[in-house]
Amino acid sequence: MKVDGKDMRPIWFDTQSETVKVIDQRMLPHKFIVAELKTVDDIIDAIKQMFVRGAPLIGATGAFGVYNALKQISDVINYDDYLQTECQRLKDARPTAVNLAWGVDRVLRVVLKYDRYEERLKAAFKEACDIVEEEAENCRLIGQYGCSLIEDISLKKSIAKRQGQEDKKREQNKKTQQGEQSQKREKRVNILTHCNAGWLATVEYGTATAPIYTAFDKGIDIHVWVDETRPLNQGARLTAWELGKHGIPHTVITDNAGGHLMQHGMVDMVIVGTDRTTRTGDVANKIGTYLKALAANDNGVPFYVALPSSTFDWNLTDGINDIPIEERNPDEIRYVQGVDSYGNLISVLVPPEKSHAVNHAFDVTPARLVTGFITERGICKASEASILSLFPEYASRKQ
Amino acid sequence: MKVDGKDMRPIWFDTQSETVKVIDQRMLPHKFIVAELKTVDDIIDAIKQMFVRGAPLIGATGAFGVYNALKQISDVINYDDYLQTECQRLKDARPTAVNLAWGVDRVLRVVLKYDRYEERLKAAFKEACDIVEEEAENCRLIGQYGCSLIEDISLKKSIAKRQGQEDKKREQNKKTQQGEQSQKREKRVNILTHCNAGWLATVEYGTATAPIYTAFDKGIDIHVWVDETRPLNQGARLTAWELGKHGIPHTVITDNAGGHLMQHGMVDMVIVGTDRTTRTGDVANKIGTYLKALAANDNGVPFYVALPSSTFDWNLTDGINDIPIEERNPDEIRYVQGVDSYGNLISVLVPPEKSHAVNHAFDVTPARLVTGFITERGICKASEASILSLFPEYASRKQ
Repeated sequence: MKVDGKDMRPIWFDTQSETVKVIDQRMLPHKFIVAELKTVDDIIDAIKQMFVRGAPLIGATGAFGVYNALKQISDVINYDDYLQTECQRLKDARPTAVNLAWGVDRVLRVVLKYDRYEERLKAAFKEACDIVEEEAENCRLIGQYGCSLIEDISLKKSIAKRQGQEDKKREQNKKTQQGEQSQKREKRVNILTHCNAGWLATVEYGTATAPIYTAFDKGIDIHVWVDETRPLNQGARLTAWELGKHGIPHTVITDNAGGHLMQHGMVDMVIVGTDRTTRTGDVANKIGTYLKALAANDNGVPFYVALPSSTFDWNLTDGINDIPIEERNPDEIRYVQGVDSYGNLISVLVPPEKSHAVNHAFDVTPARLVTGFITERGICKASEASILSLFPEYASRKQ
Repeated sequence: MKVDGKDMRPIWFDTQSETVKVIDQRMLPHKFIVAELKTVDDIIDAIKQMFVRGAPLIGATGAFGVYNALKQISDVINYDDYLQTECQRLKDARPTAVNLAWGVDRVLRVVLKYDRYEERLKAAFKEACDIVEEEAENCRLIGQYGCSLIEDISLKKSIAKRQGQEDKKREQNKKTQQGEQSQKREKRVNILTHCNAGWLATVEYGTATAPIYTAFDKGIDIHVWVDETRPLNQGARLTAWELGKHGIPHTVITDNAGGHLMQHGMVDMVIVGTDRTTRTGDVANKIGTYLKALAANDNGVPFYVALPSSTFDWNLTDGINDIPIEERNPDEIRYVQGVDSYGNLISVLVPPEKSHAVNHAFDVTPARLVTGFITERGICKASEASILSLFPEYASRKQ
């Protein structure tokens, strides 16, 4: 996507230096830093320390990890054990997102078809690049399908507005600018999103944001409520940055605010991404997603999850009990990063020094609270039957 | 309550300087600063800028505002208009908490019974002091009643644990220390609270924390999940500080985490305070409370609201539509305050400079999601009939 007019992706292969490069997202929105990932350890570190994050991007980065592993053993021709160990280390970097294992395994599977080192290296590179391009294409398609939902809401609001205007005309002559503004707002589609499932989390378009970018580019009047998304503030830092760079109207809110906004009709739909979704439709996503789904359900607001098929875990049926939830360093809660009045990027301690904190990074939203999934093959309901109607090739894979 | 062994309240009248003094809570937990409130403007500023916060404490501070108003006009003997204006200014300082208007009106009512200035001043002082003492006593009683709920849960968990132990003994010999620890935890009562409804928000004990302090002092094994409570982090800053100073085990979590913890049986009950509760049981409290109530309801976790009767708004029946929700400065979201690595208390900017933010400070939890109220007169259900059975004197006041 565009950053200050320049095409940009969060991951790319630099042909000059022959290395994988990524945006170090920890520094955004205040600093724009590119990191080189030359080794498997660099890849693991970038995933663990969250230079890169977001299920599809983690998958793509992990895929390049297999390529890096091969590059590091150019003197060993058929060292399969080493490769398996390195792939396991890559997959262990973060436990919740299924795309990581999916990306690593996919490249490994292709690599193992070949015996010669050069062939393996070439195959790994090609497969990793394919994954990146496929994810970009998947997100483009998610954008197309999801946009239709936004268009529907926009249309309904326009009709309701027109109806309201006609009703009012009969009663009075509205003329103030304020009146016009509030009417303009009545037509606007307000979308709430949690965390960053934007192009920074994928490769292009994003997952949750793909319908938003697509709708905005089509000229639909939209506005995005951006949950700041504690503890790492990916919403306030990354989603707000992305949307701002694209010119999309948005407002940063605390994670606490969504329920109130929905109660008062200020949210027309919720779209979030996911790190892993079971074949039955249970959705693991950034901690706090479940609370928004509850509020949406309580207020009749549609709650959609946007994901490429690589984020489905076709082996799982019980998200709450079976998806491992990563527990991260409590300092991510205790310290908050931002810029001080001198423009320096620093961290400040918020709670008392001695207070403990616990940092569960994800939660699971049960399928019953999900209105539907927006995938690269279309929209389906949050049930195994509906999901498999889009992805019939996985119907028989149930364990 | 105790701070480093010293008795402390968040508000007191300093007889030497003849001024109201308060803890400037904006600086906690990193700095302990006392502010003098000599004028009505000082009082308004302290309430608006949140030197003091929490419904009962705002009420007590507002009550002293009437005393300050009288002190400022010692040359005017019967200037009722002035007094009414000053009282209105005091009541307008924050719109959501009903205690502010309640405290101001109560002192004003008493003052207007007298004609002579000296009598009025004396009456205002006495009434403000009475309010402070009554709030302290109310919170002590809330602690007593609420403690019984915690004791019940503790007892049930002990029985379940004993049952579990006997079942296990038949199967195996548990011996590891880890096993013992996890069993100890099984018995522990885990209470989640949002924001700070502690003694810093009242005068003594707090509202939501009163049952917690009482249970802990009785030797019941408890642990508190402290929602950090964005945007102003009253949980991470104030509740964690209070509980830590009292030696109560607690863990700071993000506001996003409660749903996940409840899904996994890690929360036995929720207790929160409130800024205004309708006679029908709708609860206005810090933004995000509604989301926790939804999660508690979804997981069968009891959700209690602790409040003195001064926090009931006996005139309102529809909380969602009738309680005014304060919208505060968006910079409270955009900037986060904490200490830097040099120990300086500073603020850092988190989202992009250009991104907008909106800061609704409260939300309303509908009565249907509230298990019960803990008041100074006992525990009741969240229905008008049940509330009025404790407070029959308000039965006929309905508008």
